[in-house]
Amino acid sequence: MKHLVLVAHGSRREASNEEVRQLAARLREMAGERYTDVTAAFLELAEPSIPGAIQCCVERGAREVVVLPYFLSQGRHVATDIPEQVQPKQAEHPQVTITIAPYLGAAEEGIAAILLELAR
Amino acid sequence: MKHLVLVAHGSRREASNEEVRQLAARLREMAGERYTDVTAAFLELAEPSIPGAIQCCVERGAREVVVLPYFLSQGRHVATDIPEQVQPKQAEHPQVTITIAPYLGAAEEGIAAILLELAR
Repeated sequence: MKHLVLVAHGSRREASNEEVRQLAARLREMAGERYTDVTAAFLELAEPSIPGAIQCCVERGAREVVVLPYFLSQGRHVATDIPEQVQPKQAEHPQVTITIAPYLGAAEEGIAAILLELAR
Repeated sequence: MKHLVLVAHGSRREASNEEVRQLAARLREMAGERYTDVTAAFLELAEPSIPGAIQCCVERGAREVVVLPYFLSQGRHVATDIPEQVQPKQAEHPQVTITIAPYLGAAEEGIAAILLELAR
């Protein structure tokens, strides 16, 4: 019962939020049985919120929740804002292991390879 | 004489801009002889600007400039703002071929694979 929550910033432009939800759906397909479910959540401006998404995982029986920041830079959102939204849910549900994975931009080599391919 | 310009949004947090410059340096190493140079540019809040970076490529003898948007979503910045900054430079230097590559988030499959790896 391991759930993955892909966390994006959230946008006033609903199409951008929908892109993130579609990416979560893609991850769900690709991950096979590794996760019970993969869902999207947003730091602000869109729903579900991070605490809301974690709560939903817990209610559906998650034992482990992995929060995955869909951010390119290690800014305040990644360093502070996401942990501040995750910690109260961890305190509320000590029986569930909630971890925050490295943010997307940390995978510099993989991203660089994609960028060079896009530039062709 | 082909130059690559990696375009990010730009941040008030200088460390984020520096992450982008380091990524451009990484691309330069990885690309070998494919590009004469790879540099970073910013839509706003940081230097160089997109027109400034293109101008610099032209002055250094570029025949081709590829503008590569380091953005996750197909929003206004990618759809409108970057083209609006590129077009006047193309008009000013018709002898140089300036193209805009797909934005990073368009490479959905590659990004999904990186995300699943980060979540492990």
